[in-house]
Amino acid sequence: MRFFSDNAAPVHPAVMRALAEVDTLDTAYDGDRWSKQLDARLSETFETEVRAFWVPSGTAANCLALAAICPPHGSVVCHRDAHIQNDECGAPEFYTHGAKLLLAHGDGAKVTPETLEAVLNVQRYDIHQQVPSAISITNQTEYGLAYSADEVAAIGAVARARGLHFHVDGARFANAVVATGASPADLTWRGGVDVLSFGFVKNGGMNAEALVFFRPELADATVFRRKRAGLLLSKGRYLAAQVLAMLDQDLWLDCARASNAGAQLIAAAAGERLIYPADGNEVFLRVTAHEAASLRAKGFDFYDWGAGEARLVVSWDQRADDIRLLAEAIAAL
Amino acid sequence: MRFFSDNAAPVHPAVMRALAEVDTLDTAYDGDRWSKQLDARLSETFETEVRAFWVPSGTAANCLALAAICPPHGSVVCHRDAHIQNDECGAPEFYTHGAKLLLAHGDGAKVTPETLEAVLNVQRYDIHQQVPSAISITNQTEYGLAYSADEVAAIGAVARARGLHFHVDGARFANAVVATGASPADLTWRGGVDVLSFGFVKNGGMNAEALVFFRPELADATVFRRKRAGLLLSKGRYLAAQVLAMLDQDLWLDCARASNAGAQLIAAAAGERLIYPADGNEVFLRVTAHEAASLRAKGFDFYDWGAGEARLVVSWDQRADDIRLLAEAIAAL
Amino acid sequence: MRFFSDNAAPVHPAVMRALAEVDTLDTAYDGDRWSKQLDARLSETFETEVRAFWVPSGTAANCLALAAICPPHGSVVCHRDAHIQNDECGAPEFYTHGAKLLLAHGDGAKVTPETLEAVLNVQRYDIHQQVPSAISITNQTEYGLAYSADEVAAIGAVARARGLHFHVDGARFANAVVATGASPADLTWRGGVDVLSFGFVKNGGMNAEALVFFRPELADATVFRRKRAGLLLSKGRYLAAQVLAMLDQDLWLDCARASNAGAQLIAAAAGERLIYPADGNEVFLRVTAHEAASLRAKGFDFYDWGAGEARLVVSWDQRADDIRLLAEAIAAL
Amino acid sequence: MRFFSDNAAPVHPAVMRALAEVDTLDTAYDGDRWSKQLDARLSETFETEVRAFWVPSGTAANCLALAAICPPHGSVVCHRDAHIQNDECGAPEFYTHGAKLLLAHGDGAKVTPETLEAVLNVQRYDIHQQVPSAISITNQTEYGLAYSADEVAAIGAVARARGLHFHVDGARFANAVVATGASPADLTWRGGVDVLSFGFVKNGGMNAEALVFFRPELADATVFRRKRAGLLLSKGRYLAAQVLAMLDQDLWLDCARASNAGAQLIAAAAGERLIYPADGNEVFLRVTAHEAASLRAKGFDFYDWGAGEARLVVSWDQRADDIRLLAEAIAAL
Repeated sequence: MRFFSDNAAPVHPAVMRALAEVDTLDTAYDGDRWSKQLDARLSETFETEVRAFWVPSGTAANCLALAAICPPHGSVVCHRDAHIQNDECGAPEFYTHGAKLLLAHGDGAKVTPETLEAVLNVQRYDIHQQVPSAISITNQTEYGLAYSADEVAAIGAVARARGLHFHVDGARFANAVVATGASPADLTWRGGVDVLSFGFVKNGGMNAEALVFFRPELADATVFRRKRAGLLLSKGRYLAAQVLAMLDQDLWLDCARASNAGAQLIAAAAGERLIYPADGNEVFLRVTAHEAASLRAKGFDFYDWGAGEARLVVSWDQRADDIRLLAEAIAAL
Repeated sequence: MRFFSDNAAPVHPAVMRALAEVDTLDTAYDGDRWSKQLDARLSETFETEVRAFWVPSGTAANCLALAAICPPHGSVVCHRDAHIQNDECGAPEFYTHGAKLLLAHGDGAKVTPETLEAVLNVQRYDIHQQVPSAISITNQTEYGLAYSADEVAAIGAVARARGLHFHVDGARFANAVVATGASPADLTWRGGVDVLSFGFVKNGGMNAEALVFFRPELADATVFRRKRAGLLLSKGRYLAAQVLAMLDQDLWLDCARASNAGAQLIAAAAGERLIYPADGNEVFLRVTAHEAASLRAKGFDFYDWGAGEARLVVSWDQRADDIRLLAEAIAAL
Repeated sequence: MRFFSDNAAPVHPAVMRALAEVDTLDTAYDGDRWSKQLDARLSETFETEVRAFWVPSGTAANCLALAAICPPHGSVVCHRDAHIQNDECGAPEFYTHGAKLLLAHGDGAKVTPETLEAVLNVQRYDIHQQVPSAISITNQTEYGLAYSADEVAAIGAVARARGLHFHVDGARFANAVVATGASPADLTWRGGVDVLSFGFVKNGGMNAEALVFFRPELADATVFRRKRAGLLLSKGRYLAAQVLAMLDQDLWLDCARASNAGAQLIAAAAGERLIYPADGNEVFLRVTAHEAASLRAKGFDFYDWGAGEARLVVSWDQRADDIRLLAEAIAAL
Repeated sequence: MRFFSDNAAPVHPAVMRALAEVDTLDTAYDGDRWSKQLDARLSETFETEVRAFWVPSGTAANCLALAAICPPHGSVVCHRDAHIQNDECGAPEFYTHGAKLLLAHGDGAKVTPETLEAVLNVQRYDIHQQVPSAISITNQTEYGLAYSADEVAAIGAVARARGLHFHVDGARFANAVVATGASPADLTWRGGVDVLSFGFVKNGGMNAEALVFFRPELADATVFRRKRAGLLLSKGRYLAAQVLAMLDQDLWLDCARASNAGAQLIAAAAGERLIYPADGNEVFLRVTAHEAASLRAKGFDFYDWGAGEARLVVSWDQRADDIRLLAEAIAAL
């Protein structure tokens, strides 16, 4: 019974069906009839006109976004536990040609206006430093927390006041939407977000994420950057189809509801062991090495997350029985 | 009836089945059981120990290869019609951090030892110029020609004599293998090739190519570069599966045999109109605008390729009837 | 008697005096009272409002200019013999983060509207190619020719019609101004030039060139790029002083008048041996290896420039006797 | 009376004389007779065979050094107050093509083996993070402290144990040598340092620093990188001459002795106000805004350095009277 990563889950059957449906002749790159639907379909989802791109990875989405909003001599403020800082092997630096990440604090990988200001206020804003150009947050965060629409808007207000762009790494954006009950629009552009990495792969997709610009003019160079990075796949319809299938009848929300619900069952059983509230589909627990071993002995797979901590991730397809058994096993520790 | 691009063709059923087979839980990135087979399976294909990586596009394969064999202050000699020069929006420059492509001549996008030497001999080899570091050829070339094993070896000899690395862009490598009758080994490392972009997408794959290093020590930094470029997809098994399915029972050669055979039927009908011999699956014809229009009026889709020229590409799945009809239509011009 | 490079000449005494004059306390970087005069003084020279920067090398000037007018996914058309292509070890690619140089033909390293159009017309202007963003010419060219004001304007018209920026590498701009009799304004912004690398080092300076933007808004990021490249020297006043000394009482023109006049004496003696008209301070001659040896035996230093060709460069301080002796020796060949 | 920066001081007369001496004809770039002496002269200074380059700025020296010891996918551990992190506008990221700086703690901008290990131990050393490749320290630090030979060696031991390269930013290396009484060799290669940015500009030079490799094989690509960055000035002899003049009869040490001695007089007067020991030529004081104003009212120029702190820097040419007056004024606060 694996709870180590939503990356490890299989692909949703609806996505597999969609791949079969596009498995026919069409124009290469993104000239096909499915790729052309992305802008309109995502504009519906977000209740505003967006410009959208399929890309094959979340890192690609994040870094194309950052390249669009930060020059090489600029800097991006993010949390010190952000995926872009710790888990992308310098892809932000590669795509931006050397912009700098400025690291903010905050519980559960969540920045606040205060922790952002603390970073921004010590910059000198002269030519000897890389000028802050953008803020990037992850929603749901790397520790399973969701920013509410109000929290997003508060950060958006900092960005607006400072003349900064605002990016959201939404590798688990679906889980944040479900967790907060906010609309996709409320969690993004209504709160000042300029560009979103909209993740599907952890939520039932195979290898397609969407990069969504709420300010279309920011996307002009992205068409070149995507090509130039080897990310403009020649049979793009197989990526477009995945995104469309996930959006169809809000499958993306159904999948996130399932994984969030599973995580909440586990979190309820964990009680005092919880390190952070399990807003979405991830549960972080305090466990001794002995306790971790005993859970593993019962067949549960998960990652240690620093000393005395375990990360348990629920996937869209996690079996109810496995979730129940895990909850019981944690309660019994 | 479309003959405009092998990129436009659907995916081979065996590849679709392979995707269904890996559609289960496994480790993320390239830790899964299928990705781990790539080195061994490709080592068999090439009769030597190789180190191999799946990547989602040919441009990605080419440019990771170039980054491995040319420093930012180096240069790569290639044909002036090479895909890396004309069709990748500067991806080689992006991945190599600014290496320069030096452009050689040659009929049909084919370089020769002589045309390479002509470029190499006018370089100054001082610190004011980017020192030649590598040769890159495309086999089958952008104009449908195949380099024979002897021709590859002759270029390999230039590379060795000059201390240069040697890369092959094999977006249509399968077609070259079929066209020449040479073994994969003869067309690569036995002729001095260090690294191959081994294409599958134009030949029945969906979105997986293989980057194959014949000198494994050259690949050490590639593991980082692939990640850093956003190319290390989290569900890598869906890429590995495609490569493995194409290799299985030499499906890749079957597909190329089919498309090459179709092209030869068309070429035979074209007679004097042929601009280049149709070694592989591409046919380049002299046609007037009026003739091109008349072919299109009969339902044939293809690209104009400069003034008075047409490119016709046969895909792995091209219907025999369509090929026959096209051959007849050309003969009747 | 050396005629091999104007780089080899000493520094003009007026420049040395200027260094002594600024050899006092002042603010670091470009906050000093001399650096602050650059914009105004160069605005006078060019009869329009400019924004100017000192930099320590011509390569630095050229490449900061290119970075200001061409994005990484863009391309710059220049002559195939251009210094930026052949003599800067890829600095353009480094500073632009991988833009591509597109190479035009033309006698004597001089492009024309026709040869530029020939390059521009074969570009595809799709996302698979680096879109042309700028034209760069060298005036005086690498083969000693000067573009007239009309010729500059004709190229400027191409740039304007195509929406391209226009850069002039003016390592020997002074020689071109003297050669043509045109005003600095006529050879630059009145002809559509956006940015000039204004060279002084080959003309009596020590290590300061000026980068001059005729469209000041293009320079906004240059303040950061100069710093970021390690080019914002901490005692900038010693660079500013050189530029100001060269501008003072048109010393830069006096120096170029001297070197041009010397070259013309030599060219007059060369007669049919001249490969190109000696517009400025460089003379290119046809000489056999034996003739070259005999000149060297008489004490003349110069570079061979390809087989059967010699380059002779006259510096601002070249002794009249040496010039006379060289002219006589050439006439006597 | 200015104490705001040693960058603001004039050039030492011996350096000006050296410029006059090389003000004659010679080969361009670094082919001249003075540039060719650098390796040998610096090898003497450091009692080992070194490979050395003149460069026009400390940022250039630092970043060419980092590019030589850290790949784009690597990282460099430095203090969070390091010049390379805070004062070079991302030049390290530009020159390394996107390597990451990992930030360590330590009083007075001084790292220790412990604070370095704290950073190194939380890295994961997998392909998702930029692997630590080098350590960089500043000696004398940005807060005026000197690392002793033992302290350097202790950091060198960490580097060796971890397989990391070791760079020293020696913008004020002379002051550190004087402060510690250690030999240049002891403060560098004997303690495991691979490459040093050896500063002269703050210590009497005009615009030449030396980049010194103690492991010559690390320097191979630097010849290209220096050119490629526009840092290979064409009249290099005017830079070489500065370095040689500073080395001659240990002028560099005389200058540092003078500035260190001045700082110590000021520090002695400052007593409890001292924030850090004034090892070298910089004094950091606690002063109220009112006290700072009163010092300024008496004619002393200096920078505020955060709230309630002042930085006073003594230059090589600081007048004894000014130093005495400042010491008295501080004592009288």
